[in-house]
Amino acid sequence: MRNPVNKVSRRAFVSTGAVAIFSARIGIAEGQSQGDPLPSWNDGPAKGAVLRFVRDTTEKSSTKYVEPADRIATFDQDGTLWTEHPIYGQAAFALTRIGEMAPKHPEWKTKEPFKSVLARDSAAMSKFTEADWLQIVAVTHTGMTNEAFAGLVKDWLATAKAPRFDRPYTDLVFQPMLEVMQYLRANGFRTYIVTGGGQEFVRVYSEKVYGIPPEQVVGSSIVTTYVNTNGKPVLMREPKPFFIDDGAGKAIGINMFIGKRPLAAFGNSGSADLKSGDTQMLEWTQAGDGTTRLMMLVMHDDAKREYAYGPAGGLPDTHVGTFSEALLTEATKNAWVVISMKNDWKRIFAFDQ
Amino acid sequence: MRNPVNKVSRRAFVSTGAVAIFSARIGIAEGQSQGDPLPSWNDGPAKGAVLRFVRDTTEKSSTKYVEPADRIATFDQDGTLWTEHPIYGQAAFALTRIGEMAPKHPEWKTKEPFKSVLARDSAAMSKFTEADWLQIVAVTHTGMTNEAFAGLVKDWLATAKAPRFDRPYTDLVFQPMLEVMQYLRANGFRTYIVTGGGQEFVRVYSEKVYGIPPEQVVGSSIVTTYVNTNGKPVLMREPKPFFIDDGAGKAIGINMFIGKRPLAAFGNSGSADLKSGDTQMLEWTQAGDGTTRLMMLVMHDDAKREYAYGPAGGLPDTHVGTFSEALLTEATKNAWVVISMKNDWKRIFAFDQ
Repeated sequence: MRNPVNKVSRRAFVSTGAVAIFSARIGIAEGQSQGDPLPSWNDGPAKGAVLRFVRDTTEKSSTKYVEPADRIATFDQDGTLWTEHPIYGQAAFALTRIGEMAPKHPEWKTKEPFKSVLARDSAAMSKFTEADWLQIVAVTHTGMTNEAFAGLVKDWLATAKAPRFDRPYTDLVFQPMLEVMQYLRANGFRTYIVTGGGQEFVRVYSEKVYGIPPEQVVGSSIVTTYVNTNGKPVLMREPKPFFIDDGAGKAIGINMFIGKRPLAAFGNSGSADLKSGDTQMLEWTQAGDGTTRLMMLVMHDDAKREYAYGPAGGLPDTHVGTFSEALLTEATKNAWVVISMKNDWKRIFAFDQ
Repeated sequence: MRNPVNKVSRRAFVSTGAVAIFSARIGIAEGQSQGDPLPSWNDGPAKGAVLRFVRDTTEKSSTKYVEPADRIATFDQDGTLWTEHPIYGQAAFALTRIGEMAPKHPEWKTKEPFKSVLARDSAAMSKFTEADWLQIVAVTHTGMTNEAFAGLVKDWLATAKAPRFDRPYTDLVFQPMLEVMQYLRANGFRTYIVTGGGQEFVRVYSEKVYGIPPEQVVGSSIVTTYVNTNGKPVLMREPKPFFIDDGAGKAIGINMFIGKRPLAAFGNSGSADLKSGDTQMLEWTQAGDGTTRLMMLVMHDDAKREYAYGPAGGLPDTHVGTFSEALLTEATKNAWVVISMKNDWKRIFAFDQ
């Protein structure tokens, strides 16, 4: 059967631009290859670096051509793919759970760190030690099966609203990064999340939100134990860290889970001592040989549309997703591309105009 | 341009059988769908179970249809995909390395467990404790980078010969299992190795031998540390176990690395207490819901063509890949399919006639 739309398009739209616009509206595949794959990016060095990298590694005639099987790109999540301020989404989940669980734990009213959480004492919470957070994670993330945990995360995502935007957390994903992931996948890349956050937490929504399936989520994990009582085995979550996918752990996690060197890596943070964040993931990616590699860092410098923080930009160090001066020094030395959210991104969220 | 081969085949080969044979020779795709996908299997319940499972899960009209993204099949390696007797391939590698390293370790001549290894004292070696093996693994598998280790494995594979067959270890893969893996992949499955053996060891040859890429090898691992001295970061292998992918660890590993429940799982071993081997991988697979699942166990009952061992078959318990009576009880209770190498496999190795 003849497609009347094609007939109209052949007749009425003669310029490439018009066809592209028309094709995009009705979802014709050819329109996609003619259109801009990164429409939420302003023209500039960052956008140019992505386009050049894909061309260099995927065009058969290129000296830097890479077979599809080896086209791997890794993405940090918090602050790279979605908003991490004022606190990480997973921390917000944990604090909400403390509130929900409190009626069954009257002792928390007088016991830290729970007391400060229940009192919504931000000043006290900002001083929480790692031991405090471990207690919070233990009571909110463990002592249940993986399935039960996933159910809690799902319920939270369906109801929780992020501060300032009053929208679901999963609305706060960065549209320009979604475009990069889609563009890479359209060019034969497999996209992986490599997050310091919890692997099982992120897996709950990674496919729906980022198009990334569970097996391509590398993250931090706790010990699980296999329990089979009535022929229905479950994995029980124990209050004991197993793998911390942060800093050097990101290179270790990439090797363990993927076993291949990424061609591209995207992050946004590095502590002053460079031991926490994305530094090692980018180093590890860059140290691969045989072709060109792309290393990019998102800088949060847009207080108007999102948040602005990080000493590297002369902005406050909030200790949530720090972009330290040391990381900027590394980026400059190694020719890593810094993305200014303010200047490089036409829009940040899908709901932006 | 017209393909002269197609023209010939249209003219000269009229019967389906003749076309299939001709097509197979010249590699025409249509010939593959007409031919037997499991030519090294004898007709019988085991072969029938594989064919029925694939039909049930992949035909769109089936009530048990599964989307390609969720078509996951997991395979134990030692004893399931290749020969594990008289000792595991990786153990043979370690013992060979001890011999190669001995000139630089004169103290080994008088120090166990090295003394027995160097003396080729099989009786003493068969009594090695776990601590003895850990010492052997420590000196042969650690204190070097992952790359250096992979190089040693590669060199060993290129020169080592398996006992009895006097062939490279990678010749001793089971042709019927290669056919199952190829058949599953041709039907949209992703095939994973889930081995108690070392992840980095198996990754060296998994792609070439089994068509399974590094990211689809789940295995045991040791702790690695990230070391970046001259801007050339490496992962150093430490003498400390990280993850043991055996017994319950196989279910845990499948969840951690894949995050999806397999539809099919293939193993061959289970100790008398069922704590070591493939029992939990099959249990975990079977406990998934929503569709049919396939659980299979290879039984080594062919002393003539390979080896015969395992109490379940009334054969000796060699403690290398035990098929215990307890495992057979589980298999019977749960309707897992037991593959008799002697009866179900027309040939075992590609080099068999």
